[in-house]
Amino acid sequence: MKRFIILGSTGSIGRSSLEVVKSNPDHFRVAGLSAGSSVDRLCEQVLAFKPEAVSMSDVEAAREIRSRVGSRTRVYEGFEGMIEMIRSLDVDAVVNGLVGSVGVLPTLEALESGKDVLLANKETMVMAGRQVMETAHRRCRRIVPIDSEMSAIYQCLKGGDGKTLKRIILTASGGPFVDYPIEKLRTVTVEQALNHPTWSMGVKNTIDSASLMNKGLEVIEASFLFDVPASAIDVAIHRDSIAHSLVEFIDGSLLCQLSKPDMRLAIQYAMTDPERLPSTYGGLDFSVPFSLTFEPPDTERFPCLALAFEVLERGGTAPAAMNGANERAVEAFIKGDIPFMEIADAIRHVVDNHAFLSEPSIDQLIETDREVKRSMCMLVKS
Amino acid sequence: MKRFIILGSTGSIGRSSLEVVKSNPDHFRVAGLSAGSSVDRLCEQVLAFKPEAVSMSDVEAAREIRSRVGSRTRVYEGFEGMIEMIRSLDVDAVVNGLVGSVGVLPTLEALESGKDVLLANKETMVMAGRQVMETAHRRCRRIVPIDSEMSAIYQCLKGGDGKTLKRIILTASGGPFVDYPIEKLRTVTVEQALNHPTWSMGVKNTIDSASLMNKGLEVIEASFLFDVPASAIDVAIHRDSIAHSLVEFIDGSLLCQLSKPDMRLAIQYAMTDPERLPSTYGGLDFSVPFSLTFEPPDTERFPCLALAFEVLERGGTAPAAMNGANERAVEAFIKGDIPFMEIADAIRHVVDNHAFLSEPSIDQLIETDREVKRSMCMLVKS
Repeated sequence: MKRFIILGSTGSIGRSSLEVVKSNPDHFRVAGLSAGSSVDRLCEQVLAFKPEAVSMSDVEAAREIRSRVGSRTRVYEGFEGMIEMIRSLDVDAVVNGLVGSVGVLPTLEALESGKDVLLANKETMVMAGRQVMETAHRRCRRIVPIDSEMSAIYQCLKGGDGKTLKRIILTASGGPFVDYPIEKLRTVTVEQALNHPTWSMGVKNTIDSASLMNKGLEVIEASFLFDVPASAIDVAIHRDSIAHSLVEFIDGSLLCQLSKPDMRLAIQYAMTDPERLPSTYGGLDFSVPFSLTFEPPDTERFPCLALAFEVLERGGTAPAAMNGANERAVEAFIKGDIPFMEIADAIRHVVDNHAFLSEPSIDQLIETDREVKRSMCMLVKS
Repeated sequence: MKRFIILGSTGSIGRSSLEVVKSNPDHFRVAGLSAGSSVDRLCEQVLAFKPEAVSMSDVEAAREIRSRVGSRTRVYEGFEGMIEMIRSLDVDAVVNGLVGSVGVLPTLEALESGKDVLLANKETMVMAGRQVMETAHRRCRRIVPIDSEMSAIYQCLKGGDGKTLKRIILTASGGPFVDYPIEKLRTVTVEQALNHPTWSMGVKNTIDSASLMNKGLEVIEASFLFDVPASAIDVAIHRDSIAHSLVEFIDGSLLCQLSKPDMRLAIQYAMTDPERLPSTYGGLDFSVPFSLTFEPPDTERFPCLALAFEVLERGGTAPAAMNGANERAVEAFIKGDIPFMEIADAIRHVVDNHAFLSEPSIDQLIETDREVKRSMCMLVKS
């Protein structure tokens, strides 16, 4: 029986994680849940999964839930409460389904307190990939990715060790705008951006997929997770979302992981790794004809992707700055404050003008995140 | 430095194997070569690779080569000479690039005398898969497949153990006749059958690819090599010959091995496994668009495939009977003695009428092979 804490339990990854737990009651148990402010939803989850503890970022919400769940479930409040819950509970792994830079410290706390991290929060690796990997190695804990692309690479790399890896090819569905001419991209609406052709995800991830920033974040994440330079990472547009990424070994042999697009498969794999358990999520049907297509991405139409490669090469605080700026830019686009095509320009401006440090500490990376978010707000208002 | 014996060194697999050795002189050394009757070609190979010993099946040819290579290279004669060379030489592995049922005893001798087998001779596994696997386990030796499809599965299975394997999907190019209507198949010529669209192989393999018997043999080979029942093996037509086969795990996740079609890649992988060495053979180019297609095979048009599944279910001497009958049927087709569409009918007739044994010994399997070959000759002449 493996025991888990699920961070962001009322979000897209969190709910899928709980479905996986529910389907495998003999193997998985939820010991802790963490949510933002969705009291009703968290209450239902507490009734269904009977965790030992929950935490809520919103202090008011935490007090309300305390009055509703009874004394058998400990309730923690605020960000510090979530960190305290991660430290205190005796679990095998923490599922990090948080969105944005807020995911960094919970990841580090989980590793420091001896838990594996099942990581959906790619911003963790973009902001502080070096520090997170160092902490994992020092504490002998694993970071098992949940993102379908990262999970694909992780599974493929069982076929060879780091020394034999030549190249990673990240696949990208291309999002809803893959065939839009640039002129049309200038006027796309939030609704159009949220209409992803193949994947059902949270709002931030879906907008990031539309701008291909999602793939940019994954390029940086993959670089740290699998210890490969930017020059050894390629991106291929693969509209079918069946081939979730590939690795090429030094001998020219490639491995690819495939399945129907369903987040639960990658989540379950992360929970069972290095074993596997039966599921109904993935399988492909070879009794009917199908095809898989691959094409190079158009970085002119999707400048966020080129920017991500660039900040990865720059290193230091640059990836954290890009990530923080992107979070605010996505919020501004959703609110209607900036048009879609200005997301990349605004991020580049903020990144180019932030106080760059080449060897930042975790505190300095968190300060970079704050600084660029302030700059982005001022830029949007001006 | 790994030392090899290469059986069938003047054939297609043998020549490719020697190219791989030549490209990696610091890692591989050829200690023994074995050929049929191609004296000139074997002589060149002796000059280039300086093996300690060679063997030739043809006794006259063996005597001629003895007079040409000088006393520094021991020369063995006949089938028994090849077996003696396998037993005597101190090597890490034997590359079995022989064609047909003649490959069984050399495989067993290599395993018995403590050598790994790098296996291109799929007839070995079809005839005596159970005995070969038992011998490998008892002697703690590995059988590493060289066939591109088997190598693909072998590489993919590094991503999970036998317990987690749910299904194997063997890909097939479909050969030159994949789009021929049945009526047209009745009149195809040997030249048409030898015109394979994607792979450059020996004559027997190429005809087997045209009839899809090659895929049938691989179904049986995969069943023994990877310990899966016929019901857990599917075949998909994949005309591009890029995805060399897939495995599906119990959780629904699939892994696929891909590369440009080049036998040298699978050969090199077998030689380096579990390591990898750089090569120029495989890699795919993601800077240009491409697609991979999969479709179910038409077993009506290609009855050899259905027959292979059937004899695998029957077990005992049935696969050996099918294999022996097929060898003679292919020869008869090449000689113009039977038309293409009669290959499957003739094989089925011979298999259905052979002296079936459910638990045959190796000697009985070899006798089955002889018996069905005699029957097939009589059938063709009648």
